[in-house]
Amino acid sequence: MKAAIIGVTGYSGIELVRLLDQHPYVTIQSVHSSSQVGILLSESYPHLVDHITFDLDEINTANIAKEVDVVFLATPSGIASKLAVELHDLHVKVIDLSGDFRLQDPDTYETWYKKTPASTTYLEKAVYGLSEWNKENIATSDFISNPGCYPTATLLGLAPLVREGLIEESSIIIDAKSGVSGAGRNASLSTHYAEINENLKIYKVNQHQHIPEIEQVLSSWNEKVNTITFSTHLIPMTRGIMATIYANVKAPDLTTEKILDLYNQCYEDKPFVRIRQNGEFPSTKEVYGSNYCDIGLTYDERTGRITIVSVIDNLVKGAAGQAIQNLNIMMGIDERTGLHRIPVFP
Amino acid sequence: MKAAIIGVTGYSGIELVRLLDQHPYVTIQSVHSSSQVGILLSESYPHLVDHITFDLDEINTANIAKEVDVVFLATPSGIASKLAVELHDLHVKVIDLSGDFRLQDPDTYETWYKKTPASTTYLEKAVYGLSEWNKENIATSDFISNPGCYPTATLLGLAPLVREGLIEESSIIIDAKSGVSGAGRNASLSTHYAEINENLKIYKVNQHQHIPEIEQVLSSWNEKVNTITFSTHLIPMTRGIMATIYANVKAPDLTTEKILDLYNQCYEDKPFVRIRQNGEFPSTKEVYGSNYCDIGLTYDERTGRITIVSVIDNLVKGAAGQAIQNLNIMMGIDERTGLHRIPVFP
Amino acid sequence: MKAAIIGVTGYSGIELVRLLDQHPYVTIQSVHSSSQVGILLSESYPHLVDHITFDLDEINTANIAKEVDVVFLATPSGIASKLAVELHDLHVKVIDLSGDFRLQDPDTYETWYKKTPASTTYLEKAVYGLSEWNKENIATSDFISNPGCYPTATLLGLAPLVREGLIEESSIIIDAKSGVSGAGRNASLSTHYAEINENLKIYKVNQHQHIPEIEQVLSSWNEKVNTITFSTHLIPMTRGIMATIYANVKAPDLTTEKILDLYNQCYEDKPFVRIRQNGEFPSTKEVYGSNYCDIGLTYDERTGRITIVSVIDNLVKGAAGQAIQNLNIMMGIDERTGLHRIPVFP
Amino acid sequence: MKAAIIGVTGYSGIELVRLLDQHPYVTIQSVHSSSQVGILLSESYPHLVDHITFDLDEINTANIAKEVDVVFLATPSGIASKLAVELHDLHVKVIDLSGDFRLQDPDTYETWYKKTPASTTYLEKAVYGLSEWNKENIATSDFISNPGCYPTATLLGLAPLVREGLIEESSIIIDAKSGVSGAGRNASLSTHYAEINENLKIYKVNQHQHIPEIEQVLSSWNEKVNTITFSTHLIPMTRGIMATIYANVKAPDLTTEKILDLYNQCYEDKPFVRIRQNGEFPSTKEVYGSNYCDIGLTYDERTGRITIVSVIDNLVKGAAGQAIQNLNIMMGIDERTGLHRIPVFP
Repeated sequence: MKAAIIGVTGYSGIELVRLLDQHPYVTIQSVHSSSQVGILLSESYPHLVDHITFDLDEINTANIAKEVDVVFLATPSGIASKLAVELHDLHVKVIDLSGDFRLQDPDTYETWYKKTPASTTYLEKAVYGLSEWNKENIATSDFISNPGCYPTATLLGLAPLVREGLIEESSIIIDAKSGVSGAGRNASLSTHYAEINENLKIYKVNQHQHIPEIEQVLSSWNEKVNTITFSTHLIPMTRGIMATIYANVKAPDLTTEKILDLYNQCYEDKPFVRIRQNGEFPSTKEVYGSNYCDIGLTYDERTGRITIVSVIDNLVKGAAGQAIQNLNIMMGIDERTGLHRIPVFP
Repeated sequence: MKAAIIGVTGYSGIELVRLLDQHPYVTIQSVHSSSQVGILLSESYPHLVDHITFDLDEINTANIAKEVDVVFLATPSGIASKLAVELHDLHVKVIDLSGDFRLQDPDTYETWYKKTPASTTYLEKAVYGLSEWNKENIATSDFISNPGCYPTATLLGLAPLVREGLIEESSIIIDAKSGVSGAGRNASLSTHYAEINENLKIYKVNQHQHIPEIEQVLSSWNEKVNTITFSTHLIPMTRGIMATIYANVKAPDLTTEKILDLYNQCYEDKPFVRIRQNGEFPSTKEVYGSNYCDIGLTYDERTGRITIVSVIDNLVKGAAGQAIQNLNIMMGIDERTGLHRIPVFP
Repeated sequence: MKAAIIGVTGYSGIELVRLLDQHPYVTIQSVHSSSQVGILLSESYPHLVDHITFDLDEINTANIAKEVDVVFLATPSGIASKLAVELHDLHVKVIDLSGDFRLQDPDTYETWYKKTPASTTYLEKAVYGLSEWNKENIATSDFISNPGCYPTATLLGLAPLVREGLIEESSIIIDAKSGVSGAGRNASLSTHYAEINENLKIYKVNQHQHIPEIEQVLSSWNEKVNTITFSTHLIPMTRGIMATIYANVKAPDLTTEKILDLYNQCYEDKPFVRIRQNGEFPSTKEVYGSNYCDIGLTYDERTGRITIVSVIDNLVKGAAGQAIQNLNIMMGIDERTGLHRIPVFP
Repeated sequence: MKAAIIGVTGYSGIELVRLLDQHPYVTIQSVHSSSQVGILLSESYPHLVDHITFDLDEINTANIAKEVDVVFLATPSGIASKLAVELHDLHVKVIDLSGDFRLQDPDTYETWYKKTPASTTYLEKAVYGLSEWNKENIATSDFISNPGCYPTATLLGLAPLVREGLIEESSIIIDAKSGVSGAGRNASLSTHYAEINENLKIYKVNQHQHIPEIEQVLSSWNEKVNTITFSTHLIPMTRGIMATIYANVKAPDLTTEKILDLYNQCYEDKPFVRIRQNGEFPSTKEVYGSNYCDIGLTYDERTGRITIVSVIDNLVKGAAGQAIQNLNIMMGIDERTGLHRIPVFP
């Protein structure tokens, strides 16, 4: 299978290059960018020297569609929508890593993204690519909207309890923390080394565009879920997301063991989700560079509240890795193909 | 005023040395440790070379009490209780930075600290040194139990709302994050550089000994507060604590502006608490090396929930700085004396 | 004494604010910037909230000169030269932290800085402010060119051996390492967090503008010194410079002890230089936030070569701290005034 | 091919697990440790949960030799020598990652390692596994002594110039920098997070045990090379080594271009060494997690000196990766097998 990557010079794009390089059935055919066209990709990313020898191509959807079977869009929100529509109409498979097709309601998109939404026609065509919980729809789709990094960690952490209706729907609070690579490669004061190192910040409080994405999926699983509280913190590290999730448990006779049983059952046949034993919690380094989502949890009888910890590598399971997992599902092959790696530790 | 520091070789002890070195009315008379007696303190801490020329003395409370007016105890919990009692009986002022006299109920101490509690007689004598909210008692005391680092950030962040009864008492969730210096100087796998760097961990979920300390103070302010949910995360940085606090607001007509007015009013005459403007939140670096506690908050009408962010330097306002602030209050001088410094930024 | 700071929004400027805030005899009268005029300085630097309440003023040298006794120039090279000349002609003391008046030869400046040099008249007026080795000239000057950060660490490390002619003049190699704050506050890919963290880079190999500055001073001490080899590395940390210096020793009967005796003798009356004992070397954290320069060294009989390690905080002894030390010398007061602080550790 | 790993609980051992997991022709048969026998390896390293399900076995060389074709020894120096001898006598291939068989002279070993050396008989049998420069001997050996991390970076950086006799033999200075994972997983004050973070240290000046290893190889290439100056610095990062190498060039008509031509020619058929273009230098992140050694260099006409920068991932090319590369060479297969990965960036 031949693939093109548009927006390859961002961190998600370059992570697609790293991961696809080891995929046995997918070949990168071309890489595209809106700037630096004609230069070697490795001039911008010297870690690729000698290993990847592509020049950066312009973004011409007609030409691209002639040459490849699938296009990964790793462009910013607001740009992807136009490209995705063109490519879809040219009958090439599209996996969009931006936020442009995640929200089904165009008004909600406009409110949270402050950009023009895609047309409803195409919003309806795009299938939300949360691999573990939408596998059947993904398998038959040719247009995937890849989930956001925070929603991936959060939704995988909450799915069993929300789907089973075991927590008070209005009590969900997600305190999320992310490494800085999630902010992309564009230099700014807010990602300037001396401002981030040895520092800890909260940002976009109650205003993050991933809030409606999480709410949309949770309410699709359980219509009683309405709003959530969601905060994002910037951690002085490059990769990794942790979602620490709090909720009040409905059933008073639940125990940590029973909830862990439920999680183990739900994720038994989902190879990239690993549930920790009672008393153990994952750290972000334990999924570093891999497509795993690791989950630990505990129920506190004193407060009647559960604490769930869900960690991913934001560039892998939170972006490029899940995109490839979705392609595997679309291709009908083992979803682990090219992704079944041990995390880099330490 | 002459001071001794017992347990000087820990990070809180050494921070007392740094801060007292600039205090105009306090002189360090001697420094004490249970190990390395007789060697220069600067052999263990070369940043003190030529500047501080004390030898480490043994811990002999009778001798110490003869020479000084006040003793800072920076020893671990479980050790401080014995020393504090001896020193108090020798009529020297005591400021204990450990957890040994913070919990009024010995059984609670035993449950959470897994150690033998101090006797009730002395637990009653010790005054809880949350400077901003217990100033009158501190001023007349000669035996201070200095608050924990997490409780300091949390309680200062919650005080106005809890004291005014404006939040649902059972809805308080604190997602706390700390730099690694809070774990002290003893080497262990959990503070090993390669295990912490580029990593993010949660620890002691629902089991941290600061939980009962926070609950005790909150319920003393508002008897309806019973239990809280409190989590602690280890951030790959050396100094700094952030408490991100969530709670449901009772009064539906509250706004962020009104709550900020309340906070500004409550903290008007408290020089080390700085309230940020609407829409702004503090980061830990903004209080680095200083005794400030900076607070930002926002009320979300969508969820009816407030998010409060409170940051401190765990070694200063969370330990040595607040101890000196308390000594200033005991001495009847401006509480800022020797502490009125600009944070180190960047 | 009243002071103005021009270019206050850079890291050196803001460090001047932090340090002068504790100076007993100097008052900051005004702070100036070419942008953001009229806003509060603390909007740009929230760590100053409530503590420093200056608005940013425009840069009008005539007005500034009327109000103050001394001006600190913390502007970039190329801009300082014009301002310094104007202020000097207006008979106000000037301490320039840029590189504009460090090189006596205008052609050398043009070659290494790629900018228009200051006029020879003013280059001759400016006194090079390496406090420890030019104290007499500084004391009688009203126009100081403050040394670069790398030259400060390097020259203090080399001075005794070069002045005594004990090393082969052509054998000097300096492998320098710096934290990222030295690159200033302007965001760029080269200081983007995700590109620096968990990474180690060399930069400007053989091309750093501090090379001719070091060579100029070394050859003024010992005319046989001609060229040096000097490399600079970017370390994933915010503050700190280490210069690891290598040179062949001339006298075959020298020992580490003898050389340490020489260093101790040379720096006996220089309070900010601390010489470590035989077998010990300083790390950058041991001078963090302070004006100290710590030096360790060892002579290797196997190779006939000496290794000298010299560390400073690049923003203090490498910039703002040394500037204030020079002002103290100009004022005829103890050079430690306002600077005699213990480093922040850990 | 079946492999056992002894000393698997150290960072080099665990990196062998990560890399061998993707090797198409090698299967890990068992993993061994002197402690924690009987527990799951993933209890000690939770990043392996569900992925690697080995229990830790005891170290019984007779039993191990029966089951496997090759044993990787990732034990500390001083322990490996005994095990390697036993395993070699049991006719199993041995790849020793410790320093025990690197130095041909037992006295030199004793001087620098302060331990009992292996017997001369076995020291002579062991082949030094610097893959790029000893390929023929490795191919026919069944007992490999894997090079140290610093020697690997240094020797690959120096080989062309030293072998061609183009630099003054007594002028070689190596200023090496390493991430902290090189110190292993044993907790100590010197690898305690709060002592390393935001800090920069030099250590073992002129005393590092890799000095005689480097000298031994250099003098085998060019007998005129006798002693070198070699320093090691601890960088606040987990992985990565940079060797910055300085030497005086003999031939006055050399240019950077000519030297780069030589390097490109020497390393043309060596797939893991990448030579940067004129004016470009590698950073450690550009080889992160990979088996690459990237080299950049420049000749300075002002000083007649060359500066060479060589970077590796200390746990891959500096340990586990090169060990597998050597196994590939012993097996007669493409040396890139299982190792041909793109570095993890950012």
